[in-house]
Amino acid sequence: MRLIDHHCHGVVTEPLERAGFESLLTESDRAAPPGCSMFDSQLGFAVRRWCAPVLGLDPHVEPEVYLARRRELGADEVNRRLLRAAGVDVFLVDSGFRPGELLDGPEMAAASGAEVREIVRLEGVAEALPEVTAAGFAGAFAAALDRAVAGAAGVKSIVAYRYGLDFDPLPPGRREVARAAGRWLRRGRPRLDDPVLLRHLIWAGVERGLPLQFHVGFGDPDLDLARCDPLLLTGFLRATRDRHVSVMLLHCYPFHRQAGYLAHAFPHVYVDVGLAVNHVGARAPAVVAESLELAPFHKVLYSSDAFGLAELHHLGALAFRQAFAAVTGAWVREGRWSASDATRVGELVGSGNAVRVYRL
Amino acid sequence: MRLIDHHCHGVVTEPLERAGFESLLTESDRAAPPGCSMFDSQLGFAVRRWCAPVLGLDPHVEPEVYLARRRELGADEVNRRLLRAAGVDVFLVDSGFRPGELLDGPEMAAASGAEVREIVRLEGVAEALPEVTAAGFAGAFAAALDRAVAGAAGVKSIVAYRYGLDFDPLPPGRREVARAAGRWLRRGRPRLDDPVLLRHLIWAGVERGLPLQFHVGFGDPDLDLARCDPLLLTGFLRATRDRHVSVMLLHCYPFHRQAGYLAHAFPHVYVDVGLAVNHVGARAPAVVAESLELAPFHKVLYSSDAFGLAELHHLGALAFRQAFAAVTGAWVREGRWSASDATRVGELVGSGNAVRVYRL
Amino acid sequence: MRLIDHHCHGVVTEPLERAGFESLLTESDRAAPPGCSMFDSQLGFAVRRWCAPVLGLDPHVEPEVYLARRRELGADEVNRRLLRAAGVDVFLVDSGFRPGELLDGPEMAAASGAEVREIVRLEGVAEALPEVTAAGFAGAFAAALDRAVAGAAGVKSIVAYRYGLDFDPLPPGRREVARAAGRWLRRGRPRLDDPVLLRHLIWAGVERGLPLQFHVGFGDPDLDLARCDPLLLTGFLRATRDRHVSVMLLHCYPFHRQAGYLAHAFPHVYVDVGLAVNHVGARAPAVVAESLELAPFHKVLYSSDAFGLAELHHLGALAFRQAFAAVTGAWVREGRWSASDATRVGELVGSGNAVRVYRL
Repeated sequence: MRLIDHHCHGVVTEPLERAGFESLLTESDRAAPPGCSMFDSQLGFAVRRWCAPVLGLDPHVEPEVYLARRRELGADEVNRRLLRAAGVDVFLVDSGFRPGELLDGPEMAAASGAEVREIVRLEGVAEALPEVTAAGFAGAFAAALDRAVAGAAGVKSIVAYRYGLDFDPLPPGRREVARAAGRWLRRGRPRLDDPVLLRHLIWAGVERGLPLQFHVGFGDPDLDLARCDPLLLTGFLRATRDRHVSVMLLHCYPFHRQAGYLAHAFPHVYVDVGLAVNHVGARAPAVVAESLELAPFHKVLYSSDAFGLAELHHLGALAFRQAFAAVTGAWVREGRWSASDATRVGELVGSGNAVRVYRL
Repeated sequence: MRLIDHHCHGVVTEPLERAGFESLLTESDRAAPPGCSMFDSQLGFAVRRWCAPVLGLDPHVEPEVYLARRRELGADEVNRRLLRAAGVDVFLVDSGFRPGELLDGPEMAAASGAEVREIVRLEGVAEALPEVTAAGFAGAFAAALDRAVAGAAGVKSIVAYRYGLDFDPLPPGRREVARAAGRWLRRGRPRLDDPVLLRHLIWAGVERGLPLQFHVGFGDPDLDLARCDPLLLTGFLRATRDRHVSVMLLHCYPFHRQAGYLAHAFPHVYVDVGLAVNHVGARAPAVVAESLELAPFHKVLYSSDAFGLAELHHLGALAFRQAFAAVTGAWVREGRWSASDATRVGELVGSGNAVRVYRL
Repeated sequence: MRLIDHHCHGVVTEPLERAGFESLLTESDRAAPPGCSMFDSQLGFAVRRWCAPVLGLDPHVEPEVYLARRRELGADEVNRRLLRAAGVDVFLVDSGFRPGELLDGPEMAAASGAEVREIVRLEGVAEALPEVTAAGFAGAFAAALDRAVAGAAGVKSIVAYRYGLDFDPLPPGRREVARAAGRWLRRGRPRLDDPVLLRHLIWAGVERGLPLQFHVGFGDPDLDLARCDPLLLTGFLRATRDRHVSVMLLHCYPFHRQAGYLAHAFPHVYVDVGLAVNHVGARAPAVVAESLELAPFHKVLYSSDAFGLAELHHLGALAFRQAFAAVTGAWVREGRWSASDATRVGELVGSGNAVRVYRL
């Protein structure tokens, strides 16, 4: 099953001690309670089961053995092995989060042997603007975004982290944006969390016509999950359905059924269960099955949302392939689907939909 | 397994070209993206798998083959075959949506060979009132509703579409209704979406003592799914639990577990997973299983919510029978349920509960 | 699989007629509709299947046969048999609900042969205060709580029932508490439902440093389920994550995936699917599997939330053991988990996590 990972991040290259590795095994920003380990999770078990053999170890080895082997091989070799084992043709990489710590696009391409295309994080572009005035913010952002999206495959909003998906669905007016920019500049340009500016960024993304990704559903505790329900985007989706933009709902768990409804109801909405497919481990077949309920098959994509650990790029691909095969294979055996339909749907969700929507 | 379909609509009789057929395969009001087809969905696959043989074709035939055969046989013959293949004893038909385009009750009875009883759509009765004054609205509506429910099995509210389930749970006062009616009349009697009038209609329904159906959960994009969570009805359910009315929560997906809780907690609340059972196709066993968690077995019913295509009447019945048999059969094999209990619960949810609640 | 039931209640000792027994088989406060029985539910089927043999009957006997045998044996013998059949090492008992009607802690210990430790219901302590002034409320409550928690394993808030989980996450000020206490006293000390006082109680619980249990998710219709979503606690969890208190999210259904996210994201949050595991009966494996997605395995516990019927103490333990074995056994057979990992996780969720968090 050919795979395009339509949303992931780079990997770290520094050697990882146990604490550092565990911190990348979880969305939590804290360590496990004393005496406990983040390896005791579906994801931790999956690393020991499926990544250990890629590093030449037996399945299910103890964490310390795994980490020792990882150090022995060195991060470059580990990344190379795991990224290549993923068997992914194209990675669409959001390099806007902790960029200095991770391989960038060309480095990811070199390590993985896959094609890499960029996803531009809207908030990152705004935060990286050089000195600007309140009145000049919109123009400077537009110019910077135009430069950033040249060659990029899509754009992404993390309004889920910075405000919530319950933002006002309509674009802010020009003066409103200038006033909000003035407030942000006077505050010393902190992390961009002003809802007016966030909306302005999103609508600037809409105007670029590239696929527009949204973080949806669970993530690190910096977000408020109740405000990451994709149904909160309903008004925005109504406002954009004739705007020639595809809206990509990323991750979505535990609201993936709601996301599937949106992909069913709105012609420009797409979904994946990235991130979840890694973190739920042995439960991936159940979650993938739930993502194949209401969403038409031309609306479902694959992503890993892997960040930091090449294990996550590998496991995401492996879990998705296994889960898709298990779920649709059962339907074929039960006589519900034809084998050729299962193959064809696998081509769509694995890569065909991404090729079409991102024009790869 | 004897079935009563306690909520469905009529079928179309005009010949259907591909676009028209696909538009009835989805709750979306738009076509699939260019190069894509609504046949690429769980429902589309189910049509090709299970309906093709009813029309004398092999399972899994291509959409064009299916549609050509459909045209060859003609809509009357297709409807007759599929409605009869459904093996449903009684259809409770809501004929209040796009009535001119569909078979009406007697026509549905003739085509299907089944008994047909009417469900009266409250909003339709109000919108069909002849000329009326603001002060006369309540009386005219009461009289029209009394006429409409003579012989009907139940009434239905689509407040989910017109406002949301988060309506004020208590009945509006007489003067409040007259004022709201005045506003509606001055606006030229548009689609009835005034929350005061909608509440008045619902409470008029409560007073009739017939089972009161609510659209709950997903549907076409005319609704806001976040406002279709059945838990939003909690206050209304508290206010009606001693009013000798049964409240029927229709469809409910993806909130069917929440609906099951309400059926568990409130003595007058009933649930089904109609509409979903068709649209999730091969996942119907999973959804039916989830509907058999908290809801007592005397509170679960069958419906298809089929609209337009006789395929949906057939598939709903087939999917529900298959899913119920698969789910409860596994419990019997595992020694959890007795075989006779499984049969008895099948009689309850398939038809017994509907017979009791609707007094059929 | 060794079990600690970290949240349950006592059992009744009076002989139970059918209506009384059925009322304890449901969270509803009403009888089943005429002609219907609460035995027609997953829980009712489970009682007949699994408890009947403990009373010397065949599996699946009719309800009347079961109840006749129950009366024949007498409540003491029934309680003794079922509580011992549960095979639970320690029961943590919340004796704050309908205390006069149930066995208390020492009586539960005698009947079950297990260790019993107390969970102190914060609202119960406040409502049991002797005569107090508005200004003296906080001090009197603090003293009473100190006495109550001596020897207790944890404290519990039922703010879900009394207000909702959407309470202001920060502690109220001293004067605010006195004013709220004054209002409560002037109202004649009704059931404590003042949100300021409820928050004060919760924060007093936080300060005690014992594990703090919250009722989350479904329960009797006295609550509004929409306000029992654990995500409503997000602000409170942020406010307490450095306060050296463990927050135990009880039951959680149908929001157990959301609860699992909180246990994943916050270092001090723990979850169980008690209550649900009993009421969903044959569906317990599905619900337990869902509880093992995002939550790290050092964050999941077992509870029954059994109340009134010793059947519920037995069935909860049985269902959890069966479900855990079925779910993880499949993962071992599929080669996803190692057998030793499955055993170790069983030790954690069955008892180890409770031992660690409650310091048993």
